[in-house]
Amino acid sequence: MRDFIRSNFFPFKATYKTSDISNLLKSQVVSSSSINNFEIMDISSLSIIRNNSLVFFEKKIDDKNFSSKNVHIVSDIIDNKNFYENITIVKNLSDSYNKLLNEIYFHDDHIDMQDEFDFVDGSYLSKFAKIHSTSFIGKNCVISRGVEIGKNCIIKDNVTIKNSLIGEDVIICENSSIGTTGFGFNLNRRGSLYLNPQIGTVIIDDGVHIGSCCTIDRGKIDSTYIGKNSMIDNMVHIAHNVVIGNNACIAAQTGISGSVKIGDNATIGGQVGFAGHITIGENVVIAAKSGVTKNVKDNSVVAGFPATDIREWKKKIIRQRKNGH
Amino acid sequence: MRDFIRSNFFPFKATYKTSDISNLLKSQVVSSSSINNFEIMDISSLSIIRNNSLVFFEKKIDDKNFSSKNVHIVSDIIDNKNFYENITIVKNLSDSYNKLLNEIYFHDDHIDMQDEFDFVDGSYLSKFAKIHSTSFIGKNCVISRGVEIGKNCIIKDNVTIKNSLIGEDVIICENSSIGTTGFGFNLNRRGSLYLNPQIGTVIIDDGVHIGSCCTIDRGKIDSTYIGKNSMIDNMVHIAHNVVIGNNACIAAQTGISGSVKIGDNATIGGQVGFAGHITIGENVVIAAKSGVTKNVKDNSVVAGFPATDIREWKKKIIRQRKNGH
Amino acid sequence: MRDFIRSNFFPFKATYKTSDISNLLKSQVVSSSSINNFEIMDISSLSIIRNNSLVFFEKKIDDKNFSSKNVHIVSDIIDNKNFYENITIVKNLSDSYNKLLNEIYFHDDHIDMQDEFDFVDGSYLSKFAKIHSTSFIGKNCVISRGVEIGKNCIIKDNVTIKNSLIGEDVIICENSSIGTTGFGFNLNRRGSLYLNPQIGTVIIDDGVHIGSCCTIDRGKIDSTYIGKNSMIDNMVHIAHNVVIGNNACIAAQTGISGSVKIGDNATIGGQVGFAGHITIGENVVIAAKSGVTKNVKDNSVVAGFPATDIREWKKKIIRQRKNGH
Repeated sequence: MRDFIRSNFFPFKATYKTSDISNLLKSQVVSSSSINNFEIMDISSLSIIRNNSLVFFEKKIDDKNFSSKNVHIVSDIIDNKNFYENITIVKNLSDSYNKLLNEIYFHDDHIDMQDEFDFVDGSYLSKFAKIHSTSFIGKNCVISRGVEIGKNCIIKDNVTIKNSLIGEDVIICENSSIGTTGFGFNLNRRGSLYLNPQIGTVIIDDGVHIGSCCTIDRGKIDSTYIGKNSMIDNMVHIAHNVVIGNNACIAAQTGISGSVKIGDNATIGGQVGFAGHITIGENVVIAAKSGVTKNVKDNSVVAGFPATDIREWKKKIIRQRKNGH
Repeated sequence: MRDFIRSNFFPFKATYKTSDISNLLKSQVVSSSSINNFEIMDISSLSIIRNNSLVFFEKKIDDKNFSSKNVHIVSDIIDNKNFYENITIVKNLSDSYNKLLNEIYFHDDHIDMQDEFDFVDGSYLSKFAKIHSTSFIGKNCVISRGVEIGKNCIIKDNVTIKNSLIGEDVIICENSSIGTTGFGFNLNRRGSLYLNPQIGTVIIDDGVHIGSCCTIDRGKIDSTYIGKNSMIDNMVHIAHNVVIGNNACIAAQTGISGSVKIGDNATIGGQVGFAGHITIGENVVIAAKSGVTKNVKDNSVVAGFPATDIREWKKKIIRQRKNGH
Repeated sequence: MRDFIRSNFFPFKATYKTSDISNLLKSQVVSSSSINNFEIMDISSLSIIRNNSLVFFEKKIDDKNFSSKNVHIVSDIIDNKNFYENITIVKNLSDSYNKLLNEIYFHDDHIDMQDEFDFVDGSYLSKFAKIHSTSFIGKNCVISRGVEIGKNCIIKDNVTIKNSLIGEDVIICENSSIGTTGFGFNLNRRGSLYLNPQIGTVIIDDGVHIGSCCTIDRGKIDSTYIGKNSMIDNMVHIAHNVVIGNNACIAAQTGISGSVKIGDNATIGGQVGFAGHITIGENVVIAAKSGVTKNVKDNSVVAGFPATDIREWKKKIIRQRKNGH
C-alpha cells in the first residue's frame, strides 16, 4: 500500500508544537509531561507510527516505535503516564481527539473546509488534485484536494472523489462516492458536532473496477485500501480502514464494516454483511446474503448468518426442511 | 417537530372550494353533502387535522377535531355519510385522492412541476429556498423550492434536497437524496400515472449527520422526521412518514419502511430491515441484519429475522449448531 | 420488448469483415473456417440471432437460426468446428470476446469512448440522444449517446442515463444510474482491463416509476427490461439481462442478479436478493428480506432464505420458537 502525505488532503490550520497541547485542550488535561517539545507534523494510529506525531490511546502498548520516533501520546488512562516520556493524560479521549484534530487540520466535516476548483469539461477538479492526462473524467464529477488519479482511469459521470489516491486503469462508475467520511464517533456522544474527525485516505490500486452508487469511506487516520484488479459491483459500501486484497470480487449491495481485512482472491456474493474488525483469509468464498461475524480462514467457503462452513449451512437447511414434515 | 407550510413546497394550481370537489371528481362521486363551503387551504392526514382541509379516509373515526375545524371528508365507505356533515362519498378513494391532489397542487411527480433556480458556486439553489449564510453547499447540488437550511450546515457534493426543512449543524454527505418521493400507490393500480401524490416534507433536526448515498423520502401528507443528533451511515433508506427520535445511530444499508416510529437513543446495526407501520421504543438496540417485523419495547436488545430478544436468538443459533452434530 | 440499433449506442471503430477475425485475434486462433465472408454488423447472444453477426459460445447448440442468417461463431470447443460452416476456434473464449469487442465497438469501459454533449438547463444531453419535447429533465443529469426518452417522462436531478430506451410517462428519481455497466467478467481473470465489454441496453417501458439511488445495468449483448407500469422503490439494483414483466412492485434495497426473469404482476418486498439466471412466474409475491435461490412458480407466495412457500416458512419460525422452550 502506498503511503500518503496527510496535509495534501487536510491542510494544517496553524503550526502547533506539543507544548501547545495543554493550552488547546484546556480543562480536558489531567496531567502532562514531555522530555522533548516538537512541531506536530502528523497523527499516528497504533498501526503506523509516524515521525513527529500525536497518538491517541486507551491502554498501554509495548511498542519500540514509540521510543524511536518523536511521538506524543494522548491518553485517558492515568497509569500510562508512568510508561511514556511524552504524554498528556486527559479526561475524555474522544473529546480530546476531536478538539485537537479540529484545531490542527481542515477537514470536510467542519464548516471551514478549504478547497478551490477549476471547472473542466463539466466537472469540478480541485486545483490541488493531480489527474493524469490520459485519464477520462465524466460530467458532474467533483475531484477534491489532494486526490491523485493515475494513467488510463475512467471516472464516469456524477462521481465524487475526495481524500483518495487512485492507481492506473481504475474505472469508477456513475454516482459513486469515494473517500467519504467514515461513521466514526463515540456512541455515548452522538451528533454531527461530535463526529471523530476522519483524516485518513482511500487508496485504490491498479486495475480496480468500482460499480455505480458505491461508497468507500476514507480511513480514520490511515487508509482504506482496495487491492489490484479487484472488482466491486454496484451499491457496495466499504467502511473506514477496510483493507481488501488483490483480485477481490464483491457482488452488489454488500457492506463491509470498519477495519475488516480481506485477503487476496476473495469471492463475495451480493448483500453480504461483515461485522467490524474481523479478518478474512485468502481465497475465501462467501455466499450471497451471508452475515460474517467472525474471522474466516484461508480457502474457506462460508454461507449463512452467522456465516459457517457452507456444507454445515446446507445440512442445516436440509435438517430444517425435514423437521417440517 | 416543526410544522411546515405546504404551499411553500407545493404551490396551489388554482383556488378551489369544497363545492368544487364534485366537479373535479365527476363520475367518481357517489354522494355529497356539506353544511359549509370553504376554500381548500390544506390536506390533512388522520394524525394531524389542519384547518380548511380535505381529509381522506376509509373508515369511521371518532375524533372531535373533525368538528372543531373546517374539514371536508372524502371517503369510499358509504356509511360514513351518516356521521359527518361535510363529506363526499366516492367510488375509489385512491383514484379520488390522486385526482384531487393533482388538481390542487404542483408536485414533482407531475410533468408541470414549478421551480426556478439560481446557479451559485456550482449548485442549483431554488429562488424559493432559504439557506442560512453560514451554511456550506458543495458542488452539483440541487436545493429545491421551499427548502430551508439552518445555521452551520454542511451539504456536500452532488446532494439533492427537496421538500425539506433542515435544522442547524446538519451534515449531509455526497450523493444523498433528501425529500424524494415516497413509494405510495394502490397495489391494485400500479404505474407512474397512478402514484399517490406525496405532498409532505422531511424535517431534519439539529446536529444530524447523514452519510453518502442515503435516501429520505418525504411524508405522504405529514413529515418524515429525523431527531436531534441522530447519526445515519451510508446507503440508509428512510421511507415516507418514518419518525426517528433523538440520538439514533443507524449503520449502513439499513432500510426503514413507511410510517415506522423509532424512539430516542436507538442503536441499529447495518443491513437491518423494518416492516412498515411498527413502533420501536426508546433505548432499543437492534443487531445488524435483523428483520424487525413487530413493535419493539423500550430498552430491548433484538436480533435475527424475525427479530427477537437477542438472548433467544443466540440460544437458537447454538441449538442449531448442536443439532448439526 | 423493443429492439435497438447497437451502433446508436456503441459506434463502430472500423469496418471489419469476418475474414479479419484471425488477424484481430492473432495467437488466440486455433483454427478457422468459413464459407462466406461478411461485414460484421452486430453481435448476437444465443437468445437473439442477428443478421451478419458474431456469436460466442462454449457448447454446441442446435438452432436453425444459425443457418438462416449470416452468423460467424467464435468458440473454445474444438469439436464445434465440425458442426458449423463459419467458425473460429479460439484458446480462450472470454479473452477473445474482449479482444474482438474492444476492436469493433466503442464502449464506456474503454478509455476511447465517444460522445458529445449539449449543456441544456443544467444537464448534459448527448447530441446523439433523442428526448421528446414534452419530457422534463432536472439538473445535473447526463443523458448519453443513443438514449431515447419518450413523451411526458420526468427525469429528476442528478440522474445518469446511458445505453437506454425509455418509453412514455416514465419517472426516474434522483441520483439513479440507468444503463450502467454490468458486472460481467471471467472470475479467473479479474480487473478492469479484463471486463467483458457490455454492449447491450436497458429498455424501460411506459409508465414505469424508478426511485432514487437505483442502478439498472444494461444487458451484456441484449437488453435489461422493465415492463409497463412497474414500480421500483429506492436503492434497487437490477443487474444485466434481467427481464421484469409488467406491473411489478419492488420495494427498497432489493437486488436482482444477472439474467433473472420475473413474470407480470410481481410484488417483491424490500432487501430481497435473487440468485442469477432464475425464473420467477407471474403473480408471485416475495416477502421482504427473502433470498430467492430457485425458480418460483406462477401465483406463489414465498419467504425466507432460501425462499420457500410462505406457509412453510411461518411453520419453521413457529417450530424454532417452540424448540426454544
